[in-house]
Amino acid sequence: MKKHNFYAGPSILPQFTIDETIKGIQEFAGTGLSILEISHRSKQFVAVVDESIALFKELLNIPDNYSVVFLGGGASLQFTMVPYNLLNKKAAYLNTGTWASNALKEAKFFGEVVEVASSKDKMFNYIPKGYQVPEDADYFHITTNNTIYGTEILEDFDCKVPLVADMSSDIFSRPVDVSKYAIIYGGAQKNLAPAGLTFVIIRNDILGKVDRPIPTMLNYQTHIDKESMFNTPPVLPIFSALQTLKWVKTQGGVAAMEKKNIEKAKLLYDEIDRNKFFKPTIPNPDDRSRMNICFVMNDGYQELEKDFLDIASANGMLGLKGHRSVGGFRASTYNALPLESVQALVDLMKEFELNH
Amino acid sequence: MKKHNFYAGPSILPQFTIDETIKGIQEFAGTGLSILEISHRSKQFVAVVDESIALFKELLNIPDNYSVVFLGGGASLQFTMVPYNLLNKKAAYLNTGTWASNALKEAKFFGEVVEVASSKDKMFNYIPKGYQVPEDADYFHITTNNTIYGTEILEDFDCKVPLVADMSSDIFSRPVDVSKYAIIYGGAQKNLAPAGLTFVIIRNDILGKVDRPIPTMLNYQTHIDKESMFNTPPVLPIFSALQTLKWVKTQGGVAAMEKKNIEKAKLLYDEIDRNKFFKPTIPNPDDRSRMNICFVMNDGYQELEKDFLDIASANGMLGLKGHRSVGGFRASTYNALPLESVQALVDLMKEFELNH
Repeated sequence: MKKHNFYAGPSILPQFTIDETIKGIQEFAGTGLSILEISHRSKQFVAVVDESIALFKELLNIPDNYSVVFLGGGASLQFTMVPYNLLNKKAAYLNTGTWASNALKEAKFFGEVVEVASSKDKMFNYIPKGYQVPEDADYFHITTNNTIYGTEILEDFDCKVPLVADMSSDIFSRPVDVSKYAIIYGGAQKNLAPAGLTFVIIRNDILGKVDRPIPTMLNYQTHIDKESMFNTPPVLPIFSALQTLKWVKTQGGVAAMEKKNIEKAKLLYDEIDRNKFFKPTIPNPDDRSRMNICFVMNDGYQELEKDFLDIASANGMLGLKGHRSVGGFRASTYNALPLESVQALVDLMKEFELNH
Repeated sequence: MKKHNFYAGPSILPQFTIDETIKGIQEFAGTGLSILEISHRSKQFVAVVDESIALFKELLNIPDNYSVVFLGGGASLQFTMVPYNLLNKKAAYLNTGTWASNALKEAKFFGEVVEVASSKDKMFNYIPKGYQVPEDADYFHITTNNTIYGTEILEDFDCKVPLVADMSSDIFSRPVDVSKYAIIYGGAQKNLAPAGLTFVIIRNDILGKVDRPIPTMLNYQTHIDKESMFNTPPVLPIFSALQTLKWVKTQGGVAAMEKKNIEKAKLLYDEIDRNKFFKPTIPNPDDRSRMNICFVMNDGYQELEKDFLDIASANGMLGLKGHRSVGGFRASTYNALPLESVQALVDLMKEFELNH
């Protein structure tokens, strides 16, 4: 049976990425060896890194005064590296969910942290507005997409202090005005690559301003200077990322991704809003994530939750169970998820309504 | 043409690991999905992590009071994490090469560091003996195998302070008495898995003794408590590592690996010692690495170096060029390298002697 992959991450990748990854494992770039067993310093793999960085810059229209580096350790390690490299006295954080809270918590190891606003009062079901960012903050940190609760910041806003964004789960899902940000980082395991790769986009002039000594591996400058080759990088995840970047370009780039993502999100949110058995967890349509669409059974129908999950599962829909802190359902609709998977889910919701 | 993979790392993996990795990418554990796009919290992948840790413990005979964790970031990040977690006042380091030097340098960010001995005076071509480790050191750090210079510490010695070992390039190449160590860590990209995975074997009682606060991701206790699932681990490298662990077990375990590695190393070192065109870089046979066999043209024949490399390359031998700081040749003979590849190299050396 055809499977529909709604996992929140690691999550669906383009079939092209999977097929090309298999080819690279069978034989890489005419070397007679597998990509799994070749030196990261071989000219063939250095070319992979170079092309990946070039495509990153091209697809996201990254200005010349920025660097792109590939690391290991996940976005969670960036929660530490960002303040290690940037926080001298004070940092400002917007608390919009579990990952934003975790990032904020780590910054406290390094200095004063101001929570400018939080949506914790309502189970993180909205994006706070009208907050003030202290002008003496070393930076302001946001998490653009909240995988667990299903909200998303879709606007690249102006900020008087350097803006740092965790875009783990929405990078490459829309055009981004990178010039508004000092740092954009993320784990690659949603819209880009298999797990094990972290990307960081850094405006070069933001570094070198903190007083503390920074251990070599935690210093962004190390990885910029060595072009992500200070130590052995995660070779296969980078190779797979390159395939996804090529696929994004072939599909028409991030603008085409956004168009498709809007279409998928509208299809599903419209059905959630219409169908009497379901309701969205995020009331304000402007705050709703295009990547992680969260919904629950409507009031009075809660006892049907397991039924719907079982039926979805029986129809090949995987990963739909909502995060334990929200309950209900979460359909992750990353770039690689086809419209037909969303349509299949919507059809099932309609059928469920008819049968109950 | 059949290729012989002598790369120092990332390096040759068992064909079984490569084949099973491809199968897992095509479809993982009957899920209908690729291992590249499945949640790390799926029960099928949790089973992979559990089985990997169980096989780690079984194959290395790890005592019950130790934990095994899987991380990203490479051994270089461990150069920071070890002192972050263990160094209160003073640490002792044995300086046997580039990686040992790098580890020592990072520890200086955290406290006093005593270099108990160094072989830098002779281009790191021996393992220092008869040194004294200060009894008030928080730990003593060694690098068991020196990938660049080709020395190896093959004995698990007693140490009055907690012993920490970087075994990136010789883990699983011989039985190890884990009980002699407080921590054993390494990048997995030599004898275990594709690049992107780091393993750490930790005696549980060694933690919690430093005064400094430790950021969450850099704290070993985080990863022990969450069984390597605090954040998304490098899924595919762990899956591949499991295949290698299964292969090691099928082959007869680490004792069988050691037997084969001794045989391969003897075959090549004997030829280097015998052949008038070549000489070893490590004079004392007791200090010679079984994993990275370094040699150069003998005195008077230096101008033939490029000739030999070209001939080796024409015969499908890849990765034989020595590290730039040593020159000459380096044949890496990790677990997965078959005896036939070493025999092919030895045959070529004999032929080279006949033809010159």
